[in-house]
Amino acid sequence: MTSTDATTTRAAGGVPDLSRLSLNTATTKAWTLQQAVEGAARAGLPALGLWRDRVAEAGLQRSARLVREAGLRVSSLCRGGFLTAADDDGKRAAVEDNKAAIVEAATLGTRELIMVVGGLPAATAPGGPARRAGDKDLVAARGRVADRVGELVPFAAEHGVRLVLEALHPIFAADRAVLSTLGQCLDLAEPFPPETVGVVVDTYHVWWDPALAAQVARAGAQGRLASYQVCDWILPLAADPLLSRGYMGDGYIDFPTITAWVSETGYTGDVEVEIFNQEIWDTPGDEVVATVAARYAELVQPSL
Amino acid sequence: MTSTDATTTRAAGGVPDLSRLSLNTATTKAWTLQQAVEGAARAGLPALGLWRDRVAEAGLQRSARLVREAGLRVSSLCRGGFLTAADDDGKRAAVEDNKAAIVEAATLGTRELIMVVGGLPAATAPGGPARRAGDKDLVAARGRVADRVGELVPFAAEHGVRLVLEALHPIFAADRAVLSTLGQCLDLAEPFPPETVGVVVDTYHVWWDPALAAQVARAGAQGRLASYQVCDWILPLAADPLLSRGYMGDGYIDFPTITAWVSETGYTGDVEVEIFNQEIWDTPGDEVVATVAARYAELVQPSL
Repeated sequence: MTSTDATTTRAAGGVPDLSRLSLNTATTKAWTLQQAVEGAARAGLPALGLWRDRVAEAGLQRSARLVREAGLRVSSLCRGGFLTAADDDGKRAAVEDNKAAIVEAATLGTRELIMVVGGLPAATAPGGPARRAGDKDLVAARGRVADRVGELVPFAAEHGVRLVLEALHPIFAADRAVLSTLGQCLDLAEPFPPETVGVVVDTYHVWWDPALAAQVARAGAQGRLASYQVCDWILPLAADPLLSRGYMGDGYIDFPTITAWVSETGYTGDVEVEIFNQEIWDTPGDEVVATVAARYAELVQPSL
Repeated sequence: MTSTDATTTRAAGGVPDLSRLSLNTATTKAWTLQQAVEGAARAGLPALGLWRDRVAEAGLQRSARLVREAGLRVSSLCRGGFLTAADDDGKRAAVEDNKAAIVEAATLGTRELIMVVGGLPAATAPGGPARRAGDKDLVAARGRVADRVGELVPFAAEHGVRLVLEALHPIFAADRAVLSTLGQCLDLAEPFPPETVGVVVDTYHVWWDPALAAQVARAGAQGRLASYQVCDWILPLAADPLLSRGYMGDGYIDFPTITAWVSETGYTGDVEVEIFNQEIWDTPGDEVVATVAARYAELVQPSL
């Protein structure tokens, strides 16, 4: 599949323009941070989206140096968030962890900290009784997210870092993120400066939204469009729906249309490819990056 | 589980008020229409939501007579829809099938025909190649739904039947319904009279929506709230996500809050319980109905 894709792309348009393509390290999960830096550079990619676990393994200062010395930029840091705790200890822990993430982002040279805000408190109790007794007050959980963001804004501003709110697909509303639409993220961001609270458009999470075109335009007009992430919605769903993502072109998402909406806002940032998929994780990293680049060159870059 | 629930309910409030509880026949899938009529009557339920396949098995006139003679009412007929075909034959077939469903609804004595509008055309190709070549134009598919609804409105009006648009959870946007939010359904309904195009609030599909309270109020203000269906969002998802529904109380949905929003609109119709779940389908129907009644009495009825 990979070699065919690469051939097709070359035949169709000569050397592909990868000048805005960023490899999110979650896509090549088996690679260490150093391997991801080297792999991206080898494939001619100019940027990486970093996950905190890989940065922690490599060390923060060393990670910053590895990326810088390879001549790459960091398009975003994944991820802060998990702000829905209802108890005082949980609230305090969330604020402290996010302050650490803000410092890490600044040190790594990116201003964009992606925020996955968390689900209903204590939402996951596998093997528990059928009857679920946990907190079900979704409206209150969303209110707590807004409160925690407000508390973090001054610290983020001091460090020149933007809190980038991510709407997750409603399939994850119970257990991962009570922010479910781009419009909701923008409503939450409204009271704060666009330099400090932004939003990310991740095609996997928002492609279905009937308000998407209007909300992307709104994000652009407010200067809050901080990141554009792409991967496809594939069926059937994987047993773990979190891993049910595919290469652009393998699923149902209309990338040229959504990319044009993003581009029309004047967005000039990187395009991150972030795919959670066991089969892709089991594929050698260089092959994955080659397929990512070919699909990007075919389905995304022409509409930028 | 069932006997405990029943005990709790009795202890808490005496005889439960089931005067607005409707059993959707999909919940007791193993029952024929006649068995569902008898089971509902035995449990003191006043209404049934009927599926067309069960009606077809029993015969249309006979179904109408069975329900009537048991002194029950039909709260809705499931389902019309599947309106996204892009080719002329597909469009014609969809209109014809929906006209038949309209006639069936009128014959059964319900004015509410639930519409599941369909996914992207030819969306399901299990076992096909990774690269998916099908139609991905979601905006156009949504436009075709609006066109077909417009074509069906005069016929529905003549028969005193309402086309009840159902937003399905975005997990089904690719393959089952390109209507994903209540607000989108109301936008689509706007040009048509509320007696002929309405909406259903199904908690399973819309519970996550940050705009839900506002859109339920809008539906009520416009006189379009045609049906209220309840069941819970449970985790982990079933292997077939279509079957990933639970009894009220087994999952994450805040039934008192959503039910209060529905009730505040002045909705006086039935509350249908529609659960797709293999374990529940494998349970004897009378036990299922008893649990449904107990959970309804505890979590839904007090907020009506």
